[in-house]
Amino acid sequence: MNVPTRARLRDTHVTLSHGGGGRAMRDLIDEVFAAAFRPDAMEDQARLSDAALTEPGARLAMTTDSFVVTPLEFPGGDIGKLAICGTVNDLAVGGARPLWLSAAFIIEEGTEIALLRRIVATMAAEAEAAGVRIVTGDTKVVGRGAADGVFVTTTGVGAIPPGRDLAASRIRPGDVALVNGVLGDHGATILAARGDLALSTDIRSDCQALGHLMEAVIAAAPGTRAARDATRGGLASALNEMAEAAGVGVEIEEEALPLRDEVKGMCEILGLDPLYLANEGTLVLFVPEAEAAAALAAMRARPEGRDAVIVGRATAEHPGQVRMRTAFGGARIVDMLVGEQLPRIC
Amino acid sequence: MNVPTRARLRDTHVTLSHGGGGRAMRDLIDEVFAAAFRPDAMEDQARLSDAALTEPGARLAMTTDSFVVTPLEFPGGDIGKLAICGTVNDLAVGGARPLWLSAAFIIEEGTEIALLRRIVATMAAEAEAAGVRIVTGDTKVVGRGAADGVFVTTTGVGAIPPGRDLAASRIRPGDVALVNGVLGDHGATILAARGDLALSTDIRSDCQALGHLMEAVIAAAPGTRAARDATRGGLASALNEMAEAAGVGVEIEEEALPLRDEVKGMCEILGLDPLYLANEGTLVLFVPEAEAAAALAAMRARPEGRDAVIVGRATAEHPGQVRMRTAFGGARIVDMLVGEQLPRIC
Repeated sequence: MNVPTRARLRDTHVTLSHGGGGRAMRDLIDEVFAAAFRPDAMEDQARLSDAALTEPGARLAMTTDSFVVTPLEFPGGDIGKLAICGTVNDLAVGGARPLWLSAAFIIEEGTEIALLRRIVATMAAEAEAAGVRIVTGDTKVVGRGAADGVFVTTTGVGAIPPGRDLAASRIRPGDVALVNGVLGDHGATILAARGDLALSTDIRSDCQALGHLMEAVIAAAPGTRAARDATRGGLASALNEMAEAAGVGVEIEEEALPLRDEVKGMCEILGLDPLYLANEGTLVLFVPEAEAAAALAAMRARPEGRDAVIVGRATAEHPGQVRMRTAFGGARIVDMLVGEQLPRIC
Repeated sequence: MNVPTRARLRDTHVTLSHGGGGRAMRDLIDEVFAAAFRPDAMEDQARLSDAALTEPGARLAMTTDSFVVTPLEFPGGDIGKLAICGTVNDLAVGGARPLWLSAAFIIEEGTEIALLRRIVATMAAEAEAAGVRIVTGDTKVVGRGAADGVFVTTTGVGAIPPGRDLAASRIRPGDVALVNGVLGDHGATILAARGDLALSTDIRSDCQALGHLMEAVIAAAPGTRAARDATRGGLASALNEMAEAAGVGVEIEEEALPLRDEVKGMCEILGLDPLYLANEGTLVLFVPEAEAAAALAAMRARPEGRDAVIVGRATAEHPGQVRMRTAFGGARIVDMLVGEQLPRIC
């Protein structure tokens, strides 16, 4: 943590005055946020340029997400790591190279400033690892009971190189579906971390940035059709959205799905389906069959893709539907989640 | 409101299932958000291009703000109007032409869907008037009591034309300070709208987008040094930040400050200082003395600048300080606000 020498922020907890636009707010911003994120200037807006955006044919990608996860800290991450990785991943699965992020904080009165510092430090470290800069931000403070701890909203801007066009509508029958790692770790971790169920487990969130992995896959499999990160709603929802957008069927093999025994066990006890559990560092992508081996090898060569597997393929039959061949040789429809499996998972 | 013919959203209030990543969330997004904002595609990220960004020497501007105003609707606007105007204005005061916005919603369980529809409709209309597109978004739902109604976070991206460089550090002694309209209307409106004080008043928020006004001023006064919108902390805080960044003093004339009698009266009763009251459509800018008349005329020619006046000037004396010459011929230091005048004003 990099605190200016003339530190003026003596409070240990956030008060309403830290959101009022005056000196107290400036001190909080200077000593907690700017000290970690190190913006170029303290104007109201960042001013940026990057050659990747001015290349003829390049496009700008923009994405936003609010994070409301509870608890704020959990095995494998915290809300700050989630916010950086989630936004980097939304850019990456669209084929964009992530460049810049904004971060806006809604903070409940009474929040510990030490907690804020930890969250902000995680964000700075994750952003650096993902090769992205946090360039602008905002803080608002609301009274006790008007928010639950800290909410973070990150928006990302990236550059899509000329000629690159990943889109679910490009998936064709015969294309192969790959995932980069085990399913459900994030959802299971949050469920256990809430403590309501007295579950003792070693599972950690899979929360990780996937920008470098996506670049490696696209380099190895330039025909890559489309990718999605399998967050809220899990793999089942991501595949359903892709099947619908592409007008193809998707067939997956139950036996191929990468699942930890702990997650499988927890789901059996609680009656949950791991296909719908949230992930925060897991993506599913479709590549032409001829490039599947190259894509798989490229994924496995990176730590984020160590456990990558082929889980299924696109079919001409039953367009818009996802079906799973079960371990017993049967088949069932994997529908989109109707309600909510677990609130405030991200 | 543009609702698809096969409307599936039958609920009248938001439930936790609307945030779960499944079918209910898709229905809410399709029928409330996408129906009004009409994004090009439903991928996780918007893919954009604009000639203004690829011009040699152009820079990208990026800014973000969370809005937590209470009440959500008030005379002259609502949280949605505030979110669009606030973000457009943060871009505009930096000399950027606003292009694209993202909008992320944190919604408390139990919020009326009709209220959401009104907020979203305001946002779509304001964005269109300001010449900016809402290109991507997010919704999260939290349980009752975990948020207060609706919070909105908007992030804006704009293009700064080649050679344009508005910055407070460019202000020089002798430069003239102008504001575009009356002070404190937004703060006074919110205060009255909360109903705690049984104030009956006709004041309406000044909430408005200032992108077109800024373009008109810069065209008329190309030497314009810097601008700020005088939101949280009011004119006093904006001037203090500019004086500090520029290393100049600022002297303003009490008699020149544009104030409505109602606002003046309310401040006198409540012991508030209108210099610190929030505005949401009021900016202060510094121009070289030779261009002051042209800047003033350009502002007055537009509805957002109808009440524009010169309020003071930058001085070599007392650098970093703002002083006000009072109506009685005295002088007082206008310091930065230390605590908070009014919580959740924006």
